Amino acid sequence: MKVEFSKNREFDIIAIGRACIDLNATEYNRPMEETMTFTKYVGGSPANIAIGSSKLGLNAGFIGKISDDQHGRFIQQYMNRMGVDTSNLIIDKEGHKTGLAFTEIKSPEECSILMYREDVADLYLAPSEIRESYLKRSSILLVSGTALSKSPSREAVLNAIQLAKRNHVLVIFELDYRPYTWKSREETSVYYSLVAEQSDVILGTRDEYDILENKPNGKNKDTIQYLFQHSPGLIVIKQGVEGSFAYTREGETYKGKAYPTEVLKTFGAGDSYASAFLYALIKGKGIESALKYGSASASIVVSKHSSSDAMPTVQEIEQFIREKESPLNESIHVKG
Amino acid sequence: MKVEFSKNREFDIIAIGRACIDLNATEYNRPMEETMTFTKYVGGSPANIAIGSSKLGLNAGFIGKISDDQHGRFIQQYMNRMGVDTSNLIIDKEGHKTGLAFTEIKSPEECSILMYREDVADLYLAPSEIRESYLKRSSILLVSGTALSKSPSREAVLNAIQLAKRNHVLVIFELDYRPYTWKSREETSVYYSLVAEQSDVILGTRDEYDILENKPNGKNKDTIQYLFQHSPGLIVIKQGVEGSFAYTREGETYKGKAYPTEVLKTFGAGDSYASAFLYALIKGKGIESALKYGSASASIVVSKHSSSDAMPTVQEIEQFIREKESPLNESIHVKG
Amino acid sequence: MKVEFSKNREFDIIAIGRACIDLNATEYNRPMEETMTFTKYVGGSPANIAIGSSKLGLNAGFIGKISDDQHGRFIQQYMNRMGVDTSNLIIDKEGHKTGLAFTEIKSPEECSILMYREDVADLYLAPSEIRESYLKRSSILLVSGTALSKSPSREAVLNAIQLAKRNHVLVIFELDYRPYTWKSREETSVYYSLVAEQSDVILGTRDEYDILENKPNGKNKDTIQYLFQHSPGLIVIKQGVEGSFAYTREGETYKGKAYPTEVLKTFGAGDSYASAFLYALIKGKGIESALKYGSASASIVVSKHSSSDAMPTVQEIEQFIREKESPLNESIHVKG
Amino acid sequence: MKVEFSKNREFDIIAIGRACIDLNATEYNRPMEETMTFTKYVGGSPANIAIGSSKLGLNAGFIGKISDDQHGRFIQQYMNRMGVDTSNLIIDKEGHKTGLAFTEIKSPEECSILMYREDVADLYLAPSEIRESYLKRSSILLVSGTALSKSPSREAVLNAIQLAKRNHVLVIFELDYRPYTWKSREETSVYYSLVAEQSDVILGTRDEYDILENKPNGKNKDTIQYLFQHSPGLIVIKQGVEGSFAYTREGETYKGKAYPTEVLKTFGAGDSYASAFLYALIKGKGIESALKYGSASASIVVSKHSSSDAMPTVQEIEQFIREKESPLNESIHVKG
Repeated sequence: MKVEFSKNREFDIIAIGRACIDLNATEYNRPMEETMTFTKYVGGSPANIAIGSSKLGLNAGFIGKISDDQHGRFIQQYMNRMGVDTSNLIIDKEGHKTGLAFTEIKSPEECSILMYREDVADLYLAPSEIRESYLKRSSILLVSGTALSKSPSREAVLNAIQLAKRNHVLVIFELDYRPYTWKSREETSVYYSLVAEQSDVILGTRDEYDILENKPNGKNKDTIQYLFQHSPGLIVIKQGVEGSFAYTREGETYKGKAYPTEVLKTFGAGDSYASAFLYALIKGKGIESALKYGSASASIVVSKHSSSDAMPTVQEIEQFIREKESPLNESIHVKG
Repeated sequence: MKVEFSKNREFDIIAIGRACIDLNATEYNRPMEETMTFTKYVGGSPANIAIGSSKLGLNAGFIGKISDDQHGRFIQQYMNRMGVDTSNLIIDKEGHKTGLAFTEIKSPEECSILMYREDVADLYLAPSEIRESYLKRSSILLVSGTALSKSPSREAVLNAIQLAKRNHVLVIFELDYRPYTWKSREETSVYYSLVAEQSDVILGTRDEYDILENKPNGKNKDTIQYLFQHSPGLIVIKQGVEGSFAYTREGETYKGKAYPTEVLKTFGAGDSYASAFLYALIKGKGIESALKYGSASASIVVSKHSSSDAMPTVQEIEQFIREKESPLNESIHVKG
Repeated sequence: MKVEFSKNREFDIIAIGRACIDLNATEYNRPMEETMTFTKYVGGSPANIAIGSSKLGLNAGFIGKISDDQHGRFIQQYMNRMGVDTSNLIIDKEGHKTGLAFTEIKSPEECSILMYREDVADLYLAPSEIRESYLKRSSILLVSGTALSKSPSREAVLNAIQLAKRNHVLVIFELDYRPYTWKSREETSVYYSLVAEQSDVILGTRDEYDILENKPNGKNKDTIQYLFQHSPGLIVIKQGVEGSFAYTREGETYKGKAYPTEVLKTFGAGDSYASAFLYALIKGKGIESALKYGSASASIVVSKHSSSDAMPTVQEIEQFIREKESPLNESIHVKG
Repeated sequence: MKVEFSKNREFDIIAIGRACIDLNATEYNRPMEETMTFTKYVGGSPANIAIGSSKLGLNAGFIGKISDDQHGRFIQQYMNRMGVDTSNLIIDKEGHKTGLAFTEIKSPEECSILMYREDVADLYLAPSEIRESYLKRSSILLVSGTALSKSPSREAVLNAIQLAKRNHVLVIFELDYRPYTWKSREETSVYYSLVAEQSDVILGTRDEYDILENKPNGKNKDTIQYLFQHSPGLIVIKQGVEGSFAYTREGETYKGKAYPTEVLKTFGAGDSYASAFLYALIKGKGIESALKYGSASASIVVSKHSSSDAMPTVQEIEQFIREKESPLNESIHVKG
């Protein structure tokens, strides 16, 4: 199966959704109550993916709304420094703040996040602020599920998807489910299924697909049977230590293994996976390789302190794969 | 062109959306400031269509949320008396009130409505309150655009549409655009186009299609070209005194003329049109006849004081058409 | 005891708070579900008191906020017709609606009200909209408790009281407790006691004083002991069929009897009581007479269909008292 | 003049209002955009005053509401460690977060704060959560103005004041004006003047008294003339480098000079002033000394990195005064 991109566009990928601030406990392996200092990073799934893509050499842009204060300016300056185009990053004029995530790392298995997401700027992106002229300059629109959790950001994203499809921009949906801000399971399922049905590629964990379908313990078989009746051509389902599966509309199944690594914390794994997976896809390396790139990138990030800053380069990923793959190739083409 | 219904279902039509109270000025032809008494009727586009359909002999049901007070109970009792199934009419338990519409009839040309739509019960219908087991008992799900204007009613309707499609229930979208409760033109367009793309039949005025497409002075030609790329098979565009047009995916165009009549007020025309149009369609009378039934029904209602109470019977409609049509048939099949 | 007014002011009384619309069931003695027509009146306690005072010949003004629609204009036109000064009646520019009260009269003992009070215009009166130059032209500022139930109306009233006291305008507090819009008993008690402590005269039912003190089954003795430590000089406590009591800071107690009458409904009794009581006080007739005037006025209104329209004239009240009082005077001066 | 306290109570002072988190830029003298790490402290004016008082050896308690998360628990643990009684610190059960203040120190003259105050736990303290049995165990109730900025915290504080006065607990009002969360100048003035009129002692800057009176460039003379008509017996007005003035109802005026010091940042000056001023007053040292203690304590805190952690001990304050005062006594008794 080949995912078809519109070629010769200025941007490989434009991500839409939240950009916020991570405040990572400088001291690890203790409850946050005992943490006295925090280190500041840019965070938020689609922001991380844009930054990660840019570090991999892709041309990346970002559509989002940031606060008109020091935190908002930090985000913009950092993205610029990382090479992400911020010409469509909108500055909120109604006093909304940047979202915050205080991370607590008690142990590699016990990580938690203390969120500040009340009336944050990113959820105030409005449908009238989406520019068709910007979207059509990209091969891919990457949509993050959390941006669907509240109006008017929800309508901004739905509008961006309509404009993307009209201009043959490939729509990639990173499920990125976070329970806060959603009102109910049913609400989430309504929008996740609406957007999934219109997307070309979907990336998510097995748990996230269960949210999409609003039923527990779903089977991959049922999920792909449902979704391939609609727009998607490629569906990636991540299943933790079991690795990840990629399914194509043509009936192919690919399995990618998770690389064992020294885990410091679990944050950022999904975003680094997505960046590297898409990089490989865009560069025409095929799905089998893309699964390896995604997995390697995730392994590198979970062994480091931040999510955005730790995004690896192509060299790091390929070096990591070489070390882990020899002599065994972990990705198996299950069914033709 | 033939619109295909699932046959042998218990209900011909289930309407979803608002049921509210009309308070019609008992004294006409004066400003409301000088009106001293008001007469109470059941109102709301989808409620009127369910009532109108039932009066025409169809089996009709209604999904909605009503207030737990005298106004809510009046709505339920009236619907029951009119033969509409109210088993899925949900009683609000959080104190939300029934919407009100005070109508002012200064002259046939100058009618206005004073709306009470703040936090009304009908907009609190939740996605978890939609029962698939009820929807699948119907041939048609009639969706009213206003129910999309606010959460959680919006998600309830989106959920109902997903369940309807899964169960081969024909989705008919009555655009029913009302500016209040919508936040912006862009927001309306996002949801109207989303739902239109998933519907089988769409009914609306030319102005309402402009709202759907979010551009002024749209052409029918462009509208149908856009929509026939998606699910719709039949599109009806009403253009006031110029009459109405019905377009089929197969390329047919039908024109229906508006019948001249003594107009008392303009309220209720769209709802009576929809009921009679759908009646004729369901009864297999063909699109040409359906346009006549719709037009005749609208003409009868605008000459009377209420919207729901004035819904005509089949005999009244057919008698009206006979009188108006002889000796000339006003509906012309434009293009095969 | 003599309540001292600033003399020679242009207005005898300025009332502040809500003016809204009563929709009274035209058909009585049945549930509202079966009522088909409603008659429209101006309503709201302080509006009724201003109208009642004006009908009694006092110079009355009104401070409030009304909707920018037909209902708002009706209120203003009606008040003007009744002689109430509306120069400080502010027209809401943010789309808030006039409050509505649908009244149901099942029997004289079973009356209920169906309220529309969600985001109503009267509760949006802002502290910046209170003009000291207007207040200082009056002898009395009449404050209605319901206007304290929500911001910014709450702050507008608190501001008006501060300005009134600075300008030696007598502050009269009509408790007028309505449970809707208040968040909790504690919240009500906080503001009722704050305002009561700053008022010169307080009028209310025994139940309303219990709300003020936030304890059940309060005793008049304790209530007046508490309140006479602060500003009040005259406290009137109404106890239904037992009649009403007036207490002065100097230690006098007056008892007024309720006049038996043919009751149609109970609405409007308190407002007509207040108007006539204050009329008598202003005219220097003494507390004993004021209790009679209040009681007579209330009896007249409860035997009629509306609250505002039914407000009696001085002649009607005095005629009523003459008929009821002969040969026995029902008001007894209990203790000197 | 002597401020009279109820003696022999368990607590010298109970403060009511917000306890939150300060995140102080670890790197100084640069814009926050370039700051990479933040150090965490307990913050919030009344929390700082309780902590400062406890460090000075007073028995201090605190009434407030904290988040049910790591930040809330940190606040409680820190207060306990500092000896502040937290038995009436309430844990929010509705998911509200702790307020945050990111401080930016560009230079001693250019300090700014980036606030997270949207729906914070401290503003959800409810009037029903105030316990009279706790308040009556204290000599002083210290009220912070910011707690009046929103319901239900506003009503909780108004309720606490009513209960304090009923139990002869001295009410001290620290104006602590912060523009955020207040809707308008008029709203602030309404509540500031209401509470000021009921307080026994008021502390604030000249600017804050202008907010209270809602007029620019107020004069101390007019301020004290207005306030001494009501409850206050002692009024302290701070005027930056000009020092501070203390006025008594008996007509005395005291002037305290500001001590020159090496300023790192300006945060925390008011809170440390209040703690030490009240300490001296409670210990019977007289107003003249209290002004010195307040001023010295403020000077010490502005030379250090945090607000709460930097609160000085009695020894530090007295040592500081000795150094600064010799040979000149800076506090002058202006008028007897």
